Amino acid sequence: MCRWIAYSGTPVLLSQVLLEPAHSLIDQSLHSRMGVETTNGDGFGIGWYAQDTADTPAIVRDVGPAWNNRNLREVAQHVRSDLFFAHIRAATGTAVQQSNCHPFRSGRWMWMHNGMINGFRLLRRDLALAVDPALYPDIEGSTDSELMFFLALTFGLPEDPPGAVARMAGLVERTGHAHGVRHPLQMTVAVADGERMWAFRYSSEGRSRSLYFSTRVDTLRALHPATEFLRDISDETRLVVSEPLGDLPGAWNEVPENSYGVIQPGNDVIGPFRPDVHVGSVRG
Amino acid sequence: MCRWIAYSGTPVLLSQVLLEPAHSLIDQSLHSRMGVETTNGDGFGIGWYAQDTADTPAIVRDVGPAWNNRNLREVAQHVRSDLFFAHIRAATGTAVQQSNCHPFRSGRWMWMHNGMINGFRLLRRDLALAVDPALYPDIEGSTDSELMFFLALTFGLPEDPPGAVARMAGLVERTGHAHGVRHPLQMTVAVADGERMWAFRYSSEGRSRSLYFSTRVDTLRALHPATEFLRDISDETRLVVSEPLGDLPGAWNEVPENSYGVIQPGNDVIGPFRPDVHVGSVRG
Amino acid sequence: MCRWIAYSGTPVLLSQVLLEPAHSLIDQSLHSRMGVETTNGDGFGIGWYAQDTADTPAIVRDVGPAWNNRNLREVAQHVRSDLFFAHIRAATGTAVQQSNCHPFRSGRWMWMHNGMINGFRLLRRDLALAVDPALYPDIEGSTDSELMFFLALTFGLPEDPPGAVARMAGLVERTGHAHGVRHPLQMTVAVADGERMWAFRYSSEGRSRSLYFSTRVDTLRALHPATEFLRDISDETRLVVSEPLGDLPGAWNEVPENSYGVIQPGNDVIGPFRPDVHVGSVRG
Amino acid sequence: MCRWIAYSGTPVLLSQVLLEPAHSLIDQSLHSRMGVETTNGDGFGIGWYAQDTADTPAIVRDVGPAWNNRNLREVAQHVRSDLFFAHIRAATGTAVQQSNCHPFRSGRWMWMHNGMINGFRLLRRDLALAVDPALYPDIEGSTDSELMFFLALTFGLPEDPPGAVARMAGLVERTGHAHGVRHPLQMTVAVADGERMWAFRYSSEGRSRSLYFSTRVDTLRALHPATEFLRDISDETRLVVSEPLGDLPGAWNEVPENSYGVIQPGNDVIGPFRPDVHVGSVRG
Repeated sequence: MCRWIAYSGTPVLLSQVLLEPAHSLIDQSLHSRMGVETTNGDGFGIGWYAQDTADTPAIVRDVGPAWNNRNLREVAQHVRSDLFFAHIRAATGTAVQQSNCHPFRSGRWMWMHNGMINGFRLLRRDLALAVDPALYPDIEGSTDSELMFFLALTFGLPEDPPGAVARMAGLVERTGHAHGVRHPLQMTVAVADGERMWAFRYSSEGRSRSLYFSTRVDTLRALHPATEFLRDISDETRLVVSEPLGDLPGAWNEVPENSYGVIQPGNDVIGPFRPDVHVGSVRG
Repeated sequence: MCRWIAYSGTPVLLSQVLLEPAHSLIDQSLHSRMGVETTNGDGFGIGWYAQDTADTPAIVRDVGPAWNNRNLREVAQHVRSDLFFAHIRAATGTAVQQSNCHPFRSGRWMWMHNGMINGFRLLRRDLALAVDPALYPDIEGSTDSELMFFLALTFGLPEDPPGAVARMAGLVERTGHAHGVRHPLQMTVAVADGERMWAFRYSSEGRSRSLYFSTRVDTLRALHPATEFLRDISDETRLVVSEPLGDLPGAWNEVPENSYGVIQPGNDVIGPFRPDVHVGSVRG
Repeated sequence: MCRWIAYSGTPVLLSQVLLEPAHSLIDQSLHSRMGVETTNGDGFGIGWYAQDTADTPAIVRDVGPAWNNRNLREVAQHVRSDLFFAHIRAATGTAVQQSNCHPFRSGRWMWMHNGMINGFRLLRRDLALAVDPALYPDIEGSTDSELMFFLALTFGLPEDPPGAVARMAGLVERTGHAHGVRHPLQMTVAVADGERMWAFRYSSEGRSRSLYFSTRVDTLRALHPATEFLRDISDETRLVVSEPLGDLPGAWNEVPENSYGVIQPGNDVIGPFRPDVHVGSVRG
Repeated sequence: MCRWIAYSGTPVLLSQVLLEPAHSLIDQSLHSRMGVETTNGDGFGIGWYAQDTADTPAIVRDVGPAWNNRNLREVAQHVRSDLFFAHIRAATGTAVQQSNCHPFRSGRWMWMHNGMINGFRLLRRDLALAVDPALYPDIEGSTDSELMFFLALTFGLPEDPPGAVARMAGLVERTGHAHGVRHPLQMTVAVADGERMWAFRYSSEGRSRSLYFSTRVDTLRALHPATEFLRDISDETRLVVSEPLGDLPGAWNEVPENSYGVIQPGNDVIGPFRPDVHVGSVRG
């Protein structure tokens, strides 16, 4: 449905990751190879943490295609960040409007999603009712993705990201089943707080959308000693992407089915992901 | 907050009403005299019934100002209709997006609003929960105005427009009071089904936004025998507007406080409007 | 680079031609089969003549993709016309802005184009200087297509459309050659005045972009007696398109290389097209 | 017609200058006090130099009003710069499109303008012909402002900014007079190269649009020892604005009629400005 990219590591110009690589995200907006749709032209967004305003990420989103958007190029070529997201959208019925573009933000947190809640029209009201009433008034758009974010916030995202996402996924599963939807959830999700980022790959049917993480930079450097870019970035630099960028052999590894990873200072971690169906109520 | 105009009568080019009069609606988008805001530049919309596709009105909306929108001029100068709405928006916090622009539509029905639900952030969830679950998934935007429309649909708009609007207003009053809001509702609303249109003027505090209806055409014709435009339109032609257009003495009459009118084939009717607080439930 | 469609005949809702057929123009905006680009998402436009405002066509253009534009659908589903154009754009370097979208208009005339002037940056100034100084101030955009229209107007479009287009093409050829461009022009062009429309297929190298015209309706009706749509439209109804719509065998015929056609009341005409290089001056 | 602001000095978040002051530029987009138009809602732009990409400024422009644009707020609240421009537009006939929004850019240089060339439609072609043919293909929009920039570039802007602007103004004066325009030019212009910035105030009739520069920071600090913001910025910090911001007594000084200033490392300079009519040719 969509494509996304998440970067964490040595501060770089956004354009070094978003525009310059072969098969870059901007290129994917016109010619995705692995997406359900080859064209992702229904809006885009970027979110980045700036060093001295890190209390909240900057979010720039627009409703046109990424490939012809000049402001996106300008910002990407002049803004440097050590942790940023980018997302291109292929709408599946919901309105093409800024509030339906990713990333979504709440305070320090940002969120983006590829996939869908199957039967969303059937489930939307019940899921919305499960959102913390104090958060409900902040819902601006009409997507499943935004609602998934609000549910994760409701279920404790800032305290326990994997747990909150698991509870959100569990609620979607149970609500879907209550409405007779066989495979309610299909998702790859990225979430960040400015220090760390988490990536999730999950689907009810066990056939999730593609997701890749980049190989450790020191390993890549050994494999490709002549590649200049690798010399300029720290060992800790990591990308998570819907589709591989560039053409460096050995650079990309598939995120395993139904698992999640944490990109953080120190060692990154990868582990299994399972919806938590024991929390929250299902109305239906 | 906003300005609107509703026309019913002899088929005319939309531009004859929207663009050509002195102090036209387009002019009001830059220089409103009677609105809370002088500038209404946060989007606009028009809705019209076409003779041979009258099963549903056409709705054209955009997020920029009306005064510089070329497509609006093009459509207005080339489309003829016997019943149409136009609306210019001054946003008060909610997103500037197409789905927050008026008119809203459901089947044959269209709806537009000027005013606000006070304390809307407090009341939004409770009001949304009162929407018919079968309609809830169609909510696309984040305004009080769209929600008022969905509540009126929930409460029987197609069968009994004044009753449905009264029940909607009653629910807003009760929900507001339950949350400690003193004067929950401020509204002028227009609604149409392609044959008839209804206009409502109401506010909790009894100081409603301005609303005017045009004098009977035969009376005006007697007053202004030299005015050519009046010779070309039927006696039944009627406008309802937030602010008077043009400068024809005797042309405009204030809609009384807390009342509503019906513009229809045969005699138009005007009557008192009171919220109906006996129906619907209030959660809070 | 782009795709277009021109309709002349029995008044129909625009949507019957633009939205409903298999492989419609809107579908081509996402999935063109015969275009140089499969995606035409850099803006669109429609232009139509309305029966009682036929002094000038209505032009509605926007910078986003056609496939997700709601206003386009609304207008197409509620406006009827007997002569209309539609165009979807794939930009090749020039800005994505309304003034670069087709159709272009001057008085009763409208114009749209698929193709390009090769080496346009080299030739642009010389071509602009050849525009009638009285028309020059009306140039709003930066495309070759708009400039071709202004040159055709300069060279007598209203009096002699094929001659004016031939003189425009001749000037482009000569100016291109003066700047060392081997194959200066590649074009399919449609132009109309509200009564008739002309279509041109030409390229310097003799390998022009695809262009098709529809078979006579009476012939098609004999071939497909069960096809209801064919019973409702007049024998004179004709479409010219970049790519065939629908899947009716026998419905489409290729416009021959380097030729043009006239769709008009009475018999349509097709003839050879050759640039006229004897008129106008070339600066360089 | 428009309003603008230019900042040079201690690196600040753009929002500290654009959003936070009383009567900020964003506020002026809705409620200008000194402009010809009170509403400047026909597009906006910002341009800034980033420390490590200072070869070229970033330019972000959009066609909607500044007051409701979220991307503008996001960028302003997360980007820091020591030299930046911002501009809000009130169109006077030309198209509302990104390429007509200020600032304009060429390499390291950026340019913005308030005012107009009187009789621009009469003069446009002659002025365009005077643009260096190598630069002509880069013209993207249809404004007098962009053309003034291209003329200044043609006349040596990078080598001698005041001289180039004087020659541009001289050409406009002579071309205007050749076409019978009495007072051809009305302008306040800002131009920068990343190190220095220049501001010009001039009109043919000697009644130029308003322009102000800020008082030396050390003087202001002595006047207002309690004002915290003044303690955080260097003595060299300077603003030039169409209308005063904030409400600090003594902070603003009118740029004298027909003069220009240079904001640069070391002492700033102010001097008389006179069009240079001895250079360039006038066709007409």
